[in-house]
Amino acid sequence: MTLRTRLYALLDPASHGHSARQVRALEVALILVGISSVSAGTVDGLPAEARSVAAAVTGIVAALFFAEYLARLWVAPESPHSHHVSAARARLRWMVSPEGIIDLLAVLPAVATAYGGARLGAESASVFVLLWVLKLATHAPGVGLIARVFHNERSALSAAAALFVIVLFSAATIAHWLEAERQPEHFGSIPASLWWAVVTLTTTGYGDVVPLSSAGRVLGGLLMLCGICVLALLAGILANGFAAEVRRREFVRIWELVARVPFFAEVGAIAITDIVDRLRSRSYPEGATVIRKGAAGDSMFFIVTGEVEVRIGERALELRDGDFFGEMALLDRKPRSADVVTLTPCTVLVLNVADFYQLAGQQPTLIAAIEAEAKRRRANDA
Amino acid sequence: MTLRTRLYALLDPASHGHSARQVRALEVALILVGISSVSAGTVDGLPAEARSVAAAVTGIVAALFFAEYLARLWVAPESPHSHHVSAARARLRWMVSPEGIIDLLAVLPAVATAYGGARLGAESASVFVLLWVLKLATHAPGVGLIARVFHNERSALSAAAALFVIVLFSAATIAHWLEAERQPEHFGSIPASLWWAVVTLTTTGYGDVVPLSSAGRVLGGLLMLCGICVLALLAGILANGFAAEVRRREFVRIWELVARVPFFAEVGAIAITDIVDRLRSRSYPEGATVIRKGAAGDSMFFIVTGEVEVRIGERALELRDGDFFGEMALLDRKPRSADVVTLTPCTVLVLNVADFYQLAGQQPTLIAAIEAEAKRRRANDA
Amino acid sequence: MTLRTRLYALLDPASHGHSARQVRALEVALILVGISSVSAGTVDGLPAEARSVAAAVTGIVAALFFAEYLARLWVAPESPHSHHVSAARARLRWMVSPEGIIDLLAVLPAVATAYGGARLGAESASVFVLLWVLKLATHAPGVGLIARVFHNERSALSAAAALFVIVLFSAATIAHWLEAERQPEHFGSIPASLWWAVVTLTTTGYGDVVPLSSAGRVLGGLLMLCGICVLALLAGILANGFAAEVRRREFVRIWELVARVPFFAEVGAIAITDIVDRLRSRSYPEGATVIRKGAAGDSMFFIVTGEVEVRIGERALELRDGDFFGEMALLDRKPRSADVVTLTPCTVLVLNVADFYQLAGQQPTLIAAIEAEAKRRRANDA
Amino acid sequence: MTLRTRLYALLDPASHGHSARQVRALEVALILVGISSVSAGTVDGLPAEARSVAAAVTGIVAALFFAEYLARLWVAPESPHSHHVSAARARLRWMVSPEGIIDLLAVLPAVATAYGGARLGAESASVFVLLWVLKLATHAPGVGLIARVFHNERSALSAAAALFVIVLFSAATIAHWLEAERQPEHFGSIPASLWWAVVTLTTTGYGDVVPLSSAGRVLGGLLMLCGICVLALLAGILANGFAAEVRRREFVRIWELVARVPFFAEVGAIAITDIVDRLRSRSYPEGATVIRKGAAGDSMFFIVTGEVEVRIGERALELRDGDFFGEMALLDRKPRSADVVTLTPCTVLVLNVADFYQLAGQQPTLIAAIEAEAKRRRANDA
Repeated sequence: MTLRTRLYALLDPASHGHSARQVRALEVALILVGISSVSAGTVDGLPAEARSVAAAVTGIVAALFFAEYLARLWVAPESPHSHHVSAARARLRWMVSPEGIIDLLAVLPAVATAYGGARLGAESASVFVLLWVLKLATHAPGVGLIARVFHNERSALSAAAALFVIVLFSAATIAHWLEAERQPEHFGSIPASLWWAVVTLTTTGYGDVVPLSSAGRVLGGLLMLCGICVLALLAGILANGFAAEVRRREFVRIWELVARVPFFAEVGAIAITDIVDRLRSRSYPEGATVIRKGAAGDSMFFIVTGEVEVRIGERALELRDGDFFGEMALLDRKPRSADVVTLTPCTVLVLNVADFYQLAGQQPTLIAAIEAEAKRRRANDA
Repeated sequence: MTLRTRLYALLDPASHGHSARQVRALEVALILVGISSVSAGTVDGLPAEARSVAAAVTGIVAALFFAEYLARLWVAPESPHSHHVSAARARLRWMVSPEGIIDLLAVLPAVATAYGGARLGAESASVFVLLWVLKLATHAPGVGLIARVFHNERSALSAAAALFVIVLFSAATIAHWLEAERQPEHFGSIPASLWWAVVTLTTTGYGDVVPLSSAGRVLGGLLMLCGICVLALLAGILANGFAAEVRRREFVRIWELVARVPFFAEVGAIAITDIVDRLRSRSYPEGATVIRKGAAGDSMFFIVTGEVEVRIGERALELRDGDFFGEMALLDRKPRSADVVTLTPCTVLVLNVADFYQLAGQQPTLIAAIEAEAKRRRANDA
Repeated sequence: MTLRTRLYALLDPASHGHSARQVRALEVALILVGISSVSAGTVDGLPAEARSVAAAVTGIVAALFFAEYLARLWVAPESPHSHHVSAARARLRWMVSPEGIIDLLAVLPAVATAYGGARLGAESASVFVLLWVLKLATHAPGVGLIARVFHNERSALSAAAALFVIVLFSAATIAHWLEAERQPEHFGSIPASLWWAVVTLTTTGYGDVVPLSSAGRVLGGLLMLCGICVLALLAGILANGFAAEVRRREFVRIWELVARVPFFAEVGAIAITDIVDRLRSRSYPEGATVIRKGAAGDSMFFIVTGEVEVRIGERALELRDGDFFGEMALLDRKPRSADVVTLTPCTVLVLNVADFYQLAGQQPTLIAAIEAEAKRRRANDA
Repeated sequence: MTLRTRLYALLDPASHGHSARQVRALEVALILVGISSVSAGTVDGLPAEARSVAAAVTGIVAALFFAEYLARLWVAPESPHSHHVSAARARLRWMVSPEGIIDLLAVLPAVATAYGGARLGAESASVFVLLWVLKLATHAPGVGLIARVFHNERSALSAAAALFVIVLFSAATIAHWLEAERQPEHFGSIPASLWWAVVTLTTTGYGDVVPLSSAGRVLGGLLMLCGICVLALLAGILANGFAAEVRRREFVRIWELVARVPFFAEVGAIAITDIVDRLRSRSYPEGATVIRKGAAGDSMFFIVTGEVEVRIGERALELRDGDFFGEMALLDRKPRSADVVTLTPCTVLVLNVADFYQLAGQQPTLIAAIEAEAKRRRANDA
């Protein structure tokens, strides 16, 4: 494994490995620090030392993003999308991809700081916030999922938006008729009324503009009611869309992991759907304690990749890809009887106690196989 | 196909075709432009040029709606509800239908502008906003769906409304007792207290009226709590109703499309329900790229109507109604190996990768048929 | 059927009949009118005529409630809970039931108005609002359902309430430390801070108290975030509880209606659960048009009680309890070919087109029976 | 059963018994009283007597928590996690557990009051609120459930948080550009703008800072819209997570209770999953009336532990662990024909009428066994 391959594994946005996730977390943290330091720099009354600290932090973050950009450019040929393509072409392709362009924009502050130096005012620096927020949008885990939900539900959401516009303009127009005479500065035109309408319909309620006539107040009350209905409707749309999309993503991810566990190989196609729905995946770094002796036994584990060591008193048992452990506590409903520690970074599939029992109802042969193995292990222990 | 038939296809509100949807989007955009220009016209301090631009835009939009009204009137006999009816009668029937009346109202601004000319003040023009908002309500896609959800859930919603009224009047009465002495201008009567109660219960909180006594503040706090409960309750009601209605509509729509794909013809009645639940439909204009070579293979497609061309390197393969494509990437879990471009406007059914796997569990024979076809195609390629 | 039996049928809160529901709607309307008139009476600047109109309306509503109380007392022995019990005992039992006590309280205004006459001030009358709101709570349809949901979810809701209290007091205490020096009048004690905390945590935001220090503003921001989380959590709890309770109630109600339709009698116990889940009930008064010729055929109907007339051109066909109609439009996917009008008040079970197709998948024999009947009818028509 | 065992049973946080739940409710009440009395003590204008009452209540609550701490320390060896461990070690282990540390912190006020006596100012006492709120967080039922939901959904929630940060900083930066000139005191720096942005994005809307320019108001309107979307998204995430976690917990709990009822012993593994999903558990103290004669029969009961007496007229029938009752009202759809009173504290499983019918569809043999027993009982009665 070359350095470039290893670096790509760390930077790969699709990787579920432990280190790659840490790199992503670090990147998000770095962006937040950068945004904060730029923001702090715009405060007028800041003492000179604080100001120079903020500027220094901004500079360091910008420099790190510059380094990251170069690193990503270097590893671009490792991407699975770049097979059968020359390295230069793969890099160019990454540069003009949406992610590449956003990362390039995030580098601009570094360039500006380097060239502009001390003469770059805090005001012009404030544009960095937007560039880095954009970077956050592509790197924060899960933002893609949310974007997908909005995309899937676009027809329902646009209907809700139409409803919002309909109510907003109707209310603004009627409020304009009712209140213009008494408060010409606030309701003198429809666009002016719109400000009141949007503040009311979203139930924000600044209170800078308030209807004074009785009719205006009745209209206001109805508008607030519409507001909570719109909010409730949006919540309903997004709740359903979110649940469906999460289920869909989880299924594919777990399906791929299940395919790597030999224990599930004999299970027929119908049964596997039941199983996939019930498993969750988890990743552990090397040396992590997966199970602690004496803890409540609320789940069992199937190893997808990696090695673990089961420590029962003085004895130690090694398990690796395809093995499972933790089933005894489920079968006996007792606390854990051993420590289990990872020897290498591990990815495991977790089966919760509730799902274990429900699976026992639907797939008795599968659970019987687990019980048989548990019996064999107990015999070995005795 | 006569001009009238073709025009009707474009204007048919029930059509899922690509062009018809573009016409609807255009109409919504036009309404929004019209509403905005009328609104802008009511601003007092507007420079004369801006004012005349707004007036001109309003006039143009009004004229276009007039033209649209005539077009809809002309094509009315093409409607499926007008079989065995004379053209004149079909047109009259459309004119007195709710949609026809609303479209007629939306035409009034055109008439008023034409006759009233320059003498028509911006103030009287502001009524156009309401007329066009009404038109938006009938033409915006999905507003009917939302109306249906409110109708389905009317009993639960009226219960929530009753709760709202109960809390509102109780709070207003008690606040009137507690605060009337200290703030007679705000809590001097129950109707006056109601304003505070509704502003608080919807958590809008303008802050123009605030309880000052300790007892009043405790009441206020409870009222805010009730407010978020009412909101939460509404969200729950609408979320459930929305999910149920969307599922119901999708089912019928997909069922009708599935019936046109011969591949599904042999599938028994029980199995078809599983399949319909998992398919989604999508429409493409002529010349669109459905699949791009090298992209991630996350779904397969069944052609309901239209023709596509599969481009593998130099060779090209034509597929039409009833054929399917994109299955290889699902079976092999590899990026797409070909471009697929539409030759005519197409409607396809899309089967997501997660649903493909779940279907593989529930309907193994169906997936076996797909695999057999894929094997045949691979043999052809070799 | 005696007058008392017929009156009981109208007043029975558990009845799903058309007239009984109209009586309930009337009662809700009457309560709302009463509340409004009492509220209007508390307005100081009201002209004398308006005031006397309000007082007259209040008096009439109170008198009607008095009459209603007597009527309910009279029909109490008809209640199914009063079998094998003397009429006097049944009435006494109703009087001391929660509903009886609340109805008695709602009568107090009538007594007070009759005795107090003109001397009864608007201020003392305002207590009527609370009494009538209480009556609304027992008579509004669905309020019991909502109360049940809150009861079912009490453990989850109390957890959310605990969270609310934890956040509220923590925020109030910390705000007291941070802001007491600068704003002693608003944050001088923890109870005083609580007002700000509750206004902020519920996102009401009056703006009468606002943190001024930077630390206080950070705290405020976090508090608002907690607020939307609490709201989201409540929405989640209530959404789930509501869906579960509605499903449970519908099932029992439809189950009882299905048991009365002979067509479903042969269906086995397993299948009936599928069917019950898909049916909805609807009630029609005498002479109502259930199906209009030419309309879209989106559902079929099973008659539970009552008689309908199918009008195909000149011919008319009578159907009664246990018959079904409207199936042809579903089978042929065409507009309705006949008018169907009720001859007596009717209760029917409705099967939606989407559910019809899904049932066709799960219960093919049932749909086959419907198709056979449709074929027989078509043969008769020909 | 020793005193220590019995005391442990009362204090065990995992116990579902009636007395243990009352102890927990008492503890929550005590914490709330303590928090209130400390809060009241910080009010400046309080009369001397009220102040001394508040101080006395605070002292008593603190002393009770001290006693509770000692009690919990004493019973620690009874915990199931402390098998094969010496009593001293078990106590030490509890002391350093999170719960033990929080309970120790909650004792500090007692110590401070005892030593500090009258000299301890109300201001320093206000820190007690935080300590006790912390204790509330560990003892309030259900807070652990909510914490678990937040943990399960952490990836989705962090995505929503990222979205929140992205919108917040973008809006603050743009608002800073648009409004800084006109309102330098409110929008002069990005951190200052952030206050407006967070108040607006959470739709709190204090109104202390309001955009004045047209562009700023458009930005504000968009920000409010984003706010209700974020709120809706959060509601969706938490609603789904909450439903899944509650289902999981209930399943395990009921599964364990079902295992103790012999009636369900013969049921196969597949069927038992159906049954577990439909049962709920309830606990009654000694002498409670489970069923009242004449009430509506809406559920049947299986006794897990305890004894009940069925009183039909003069005769009395005793039932104990594993028996069931209340089935006749379900089978006959009639009001209850007997009183059922508990003779000892009881835990029962409740089967709702709707679930009974649905189970009758899915598990006909089970319901047949219940009907057979009901027939035998009726024969005995005759």
